[in-house]
Amino acid sequence: MRIGILTIGNELMNGRIADTNASFIAREANQQGWSVEAIMSVGDDFAAIKNRLDYLLSMTDAVICSGGLGPTSDDITTAAIAEAFGLSLYTDENVLSFIKDIFTKFNLRWVENNAKQAMFPQGAEVIPNLRGTAPGFLLPVKKKLIFAIPGVPAEAKMMMTEGVIPALRKHFPQNDQYAEKQTIKTFGLSEAAVDDRLKDIDFDSMGVSVGFYPVFPENHIVLIARSKTHDEAQDNLQKAQNEISSRLQDYIFSYGERTLEEVIASLLTENKLTIAVAESCTGGLITNRLTDVSGSSDYLERGLVTYSNKAKISMLGVPAEIIEKHGAVSEETARLMAEGVRKLAGTDLGLSSTGIAGPTGGSKEKPVGTVYLALAGPQQTICRHYSFRWDRKRNKEVFSEAALFLLKNYCETQISKTK
Amino acid sequence: MRIGILTIGNELMNGRIADTNASFIAREANQQGWSVEAIMSVGDDFAAIKNRLDYLLSMTDAVICSGGLGPTSDDITTAAIAEAFGLSLYTDENVLSFIKDIFTKFNLRWVENNAKQAMFPQGAEVIPNLRGTAPGFLLPVKKKLIFAIPGVPAEAKMMMTEGVIPALRKHFPQNDQYAEKQTIKTFGLSEAAVDDRLKDIDFDSMGVSVGFYPVFPENHIVLIARSKTHDEAQDNLQKAQNEISSRLQDYIFSYGERTLEEVIASLLTENKLTIAVAESCTGGLITNRLTDVSGSSDYLERGLVTYSNKAKISMLGVPAEIIEKHGAVSEETARLMAEGVRKLAGTDLGLSSTGIAGPTGGSKEKPVGTVYLALAGPQQTICRHYSFRWDRKRNKEVFSEAALFLLKNYCETQISKTK
Repeated sequence: MRIGILTIGNELMNGRIADTNASFIAREANQQGWSVEAIMSVGDDFAAIKNRLDYLLSMTDAVICSGGLGPTSDDITTAAIAEAFGLSLYTDENVLSFIKDIFTKFNLRWVENNAKQAMFPQGAEVIPNLRGTAPGFLLPVKKKLIFAIPGVPAEAKMMMTEGVIPALRKHFPQNDQYAEKQTIKTFGLSEAAVDDRLKDIDFDSMGVSVGFYPVFPENHIVLIARSKTHDEAQDNLQKAQNEISSRLQDYIFSYGERTLEEVIASLLTENKLTIAVAESCTGGLITNRLTDVSGSSDYLERGLVTYSNKAKISMLGVPAEIIEKHGAVSEETARLMAEGVRKLAGTDLGLSSTGIAGPTGGSKEKPVGTVYLALAGPQQTICRHYSFRWDRKRNKEVFSEAALFLLKNYCETQISKTK
Repeated sequence: MRIGILTIGNELMNGRIADTNASFIAREANQQGWSVEAIMSVGDDFAAIKNRLDYLLSMTDAVICSGGLGPTSDDITTAAIAEAFGLSLYTDENVLSFIKDIFTKFNLRWVENNAKQAMFPQGAEVIPNLRGTAPGFLLPVKKKLIFAIPGVPAEAKMMMTEGVIPALRKHFPQNDQYAEKQTIKTFGLSEAAVDDRLKDIDFDSMGVSVGFYPVFPENHIVLIARSKTHDEAQDNLQKAQNEISSRLQDYIFSYGERTLEEVIASLLTENKLTIAVAESCTGGLITNRLTDVSGSSDYLERGLVTYSNKAKISMLGVPAEIIEKHGAVSEETARLMAEGVRKLAGTDLGLSSTGIAGPTGGSKEKPVGTVYLALAGPQQTICRHYSFRWDRKRNKEVFSEAALFLLKNYCETQISKTK
């Protein structure tokens, strides 16, 4: 099936906001095995919307429009689509009372132009919006389909996956009617290396499509299994996942949408482990990421950004001689930082980072991008040494990711030991 | 002038990456007073590129293409544009030796397909690329102009501002030949409030256009003054800036592109002030932002994320009774945290945050989004109390922004006192 995408709004044409809906819609369509023929943006303008719709319909089976469904006078998508095909508008009374209920519930003053959001072109089918007031719709035109969904990204995403894709699968029935999806998140291998390790897997014979999505510093793999039955799709997905797991095991941290921070949150909470962090080069980023998870105060006791040597010495008890002899950026210092913060905070674990984020401060022996990460536990302290080559901000990001990954691995090892 | 934008690459059509170039190009064009008629994305496909170019040229004076100029076989933009207009390709010897020099300089092995980047359609003019190997070009076609620039965002941005815009201004001479630009960054007012405070200014009569760009949690204002002479454009820009300054003074932190962290870095460095940070609800984000600036070790001594009450008590010396009586989220605790970390680190300043990022932990008196921020100096400690209503991550962002803003204001006040 051939798809066209039309994002609508003056704010896209003047560059005021970047269009994130188009790439999300394209990605979802692609994962269904559909081909995206063209992506366009257009302003809130009747003639231009008609012109772009005609052009897109000339080369596609369905056009997905996003944006311009709100209550204000510049939101004209519904009226423009109706006008483009000579259709009148009707009011859907169910939608109207649904919108009025929202206003009552949140104690908002009803303004009459909100009724606009309950109006649809004759022949359109309503697609409900569970995250906002403006519903979307689908309109069959000349054996093709036009979809209209809101521009608010969270609403557009929900309606694309829960409204547009099922409707398209229904209107254009395919042999492989069932699609099951799995995201696998990895860290530590380049995209080319991930690709190389998986190249011998025959995904096609399993009826599974595979996509690679770099989300710095991670690489995400998305699998879609399609089949005539739900069970077969699930089986095939599981087979493909098993093949990937056996080849990338050490680099996978999440089967599904959970972030690395969220995976760690579960591991620490389930095993009643507490942690304290001592950071140097990451400047607070490790602790900041740990505290992005609600409830992190259950396991994170404190974090110290010991940026100066004085702070490393006085708070963490790293001996001045060690810093003098081996340098603040060294395995010795990293280990003592992790052990020091663990002891100071009285936690089960202590995690530390010391390195050179750049752009200055590098040397021949320890170039910009060098980092030592240590994790102190009750029995032992482990330390890892890495070299990266990014700019300051990306170095901080990849340092923090490697530190959290070390923590995840440690927790998993401890758990498997106690079982 | 009417502009069309065409971003080229299979990675855009399958949603693998989001298109950020289109919105940047649209914004720059808009700031020149030009109208963006259509934005399109297309895959690396000869026929599709020709088709989209014809369509865009039918409604515009110039089309700016981005992407597909690299050395690999799927980069076909140059050949597709040549083919679309029946033009042959020529090799620019200067460009070829420039690219070969880069390979020699960085000790890279020369692969012959790199020579592709020195090939251009007959009649094209080269636009140099100072950040990469692939140059761009402009091609006059049927009294219109086609531009091709790389897809790598940093290269696309540089070539848009330094190559495409000057060339368009030259080829389509305008009365207001000189354009001067100024960005003004604000924090603390909603976009609607900024708009409202500026609504009495007659920017038109000054020949100045004004654009508002929300960059959460900041609002940026971009002024463009156009005039027949450079001096007049500069004068008009200054006039407009003065009008804005007098109305938004308390909310502006940057005239130009500098970030809040960079503004603070200058203030602290120039005044030889050192700082330490004690964070609770921001979880390390304030310290992380301060350390995003290279050279921050000159003024940042340490940062503590005292997430637990125990850490607040033992490291910062906040009395347990104070926390018990007023709560960890209170003006009293915030003040003692700032004073405590200042004393502990022996710095000129101490900055603290304590609040409720959410989604849990709120109460009727102190709902989610409540934050107390304190700054301790040699003479006194100041404290601010705010209430925001975002989700956890955005609350952390806006809390950290408000803390850094408080720090900026303090530094400026101190400096004006000593003068």
